[in-house]
Amino acid sequence: MENVQTSALVTTPEALLEHWQGHRRLTRKVIAAFPEKDFFGFNIGGMRPFSKMAMEILDLTEHGIRGIVTGTYPEMHELPHHGNNPDLMPKTQAAFLEKWDEVTAILNELWTQIPADRYQEISVAFGQYENTNFDSIMYYIDNEIHHRAQGTVYLRALGIEPPAFWDRY
Amino acid sequence: MENVQTSALVTTPEALLEHWQGHRRLTRKVIAAFPEKDFFGFNIGGMRPFSKMAMEILDLTEHGIRGIVTGTYPEMHELPHHGNNPDLMPKTQAAFLEKWDEVTAILNELWTQIPADRYQEISVAFGQYENTNFDSIMYYIDNEIHHRAQGTVYLRALGIEPPAFWDRY
Repeated sequence: MENVQTSALVTTPEALLEHWQGHRRLTRKVIAAFPEKDFFGFNIGGMRPFSKMAMEILDLTEHGIRGIVTGTYPEMHELPHHGNNPDLMPKTQAAFLEKWDEVTAILNELWTQIPADRYQEISVAFGQYENTNFDSIMYYIDNEIHHRAQGTVYLRALGIEPPAFWDRY
Repeated sequence: MENVQTSALVTTPEALLEHWQGHRRLTRKVIAAFPEKDFFGFNIGGMRPFSKMAMEILDLTEHGIRGIVTGTYPEMHELPHHGNNPDLMPKTQAAFLEKWDEVTAILNELWTQIPADRYQEISVAFGQYENTNFDSIMYYIDNEIHHRAQGTVYLRALGIEPPAFWDRY
């Protein structure tokens, strides 16, 4: 067997979508694990409450995938998670979960519209981040893992056992 | 342009290694940002100190990549981060960073030995986790992002600004 790494099939679009949606299923459980008042009000060390982090995740997912398909992105400061637009955020935990499920459907629908050669094309995401679209997708997923993990520390500090890291079902 | 997703080039072995090593450069900075006593002693909500999480990351990286190349894995309970083997952990923060750099070199060296068809093969990692090798690699990277993010909350709680999430250089 020849070892020609650049010709290797590392992963497929379908597997990458399933990877992302698996992480999104776990993040949804972390959102739901918070008492409502703590979801909007609890923090550690001057960080944001988990609702703001969850809004950032929603924003990057919805507008990130839309940008990859259409080539058009809003500016970061226009997004609901941004400090200038708190009124655009869902006002209850239930409304957050409803928005979450809407974005799940949007991601599934738009994903199938990504042209095959788009992953390796270079784009400027959100008007400022120049990367291959694959790297942009990884950034959105990694950013979700990062903030969700911060949320799990909030839960532990509140005496609540978070959903397990491997629980993506 | 035809949209045949399964034939899309999503990423390459070289890009995936760079992605992992970028995360590892950031995690190294997070380790270094802790005061030594807090690296080994500070925690929130009954969680492990960051040194134990860093050891888990080191273990999964070193033995994960070795397993993907050789097909042979130690059992989880044999690894230094496991509760049964605290004596196998580096004893100082400097020794942790030295071990970190050793594993960086090991990962670079072994990565080039991954056969092109290995990514999509299914293996049982560490005697218990059955996945494609690509999914196992993603699990190791994601697990690192997850625990590193928990470490950044520890830093914030200690009044220390963590390295930025995008700082992978």
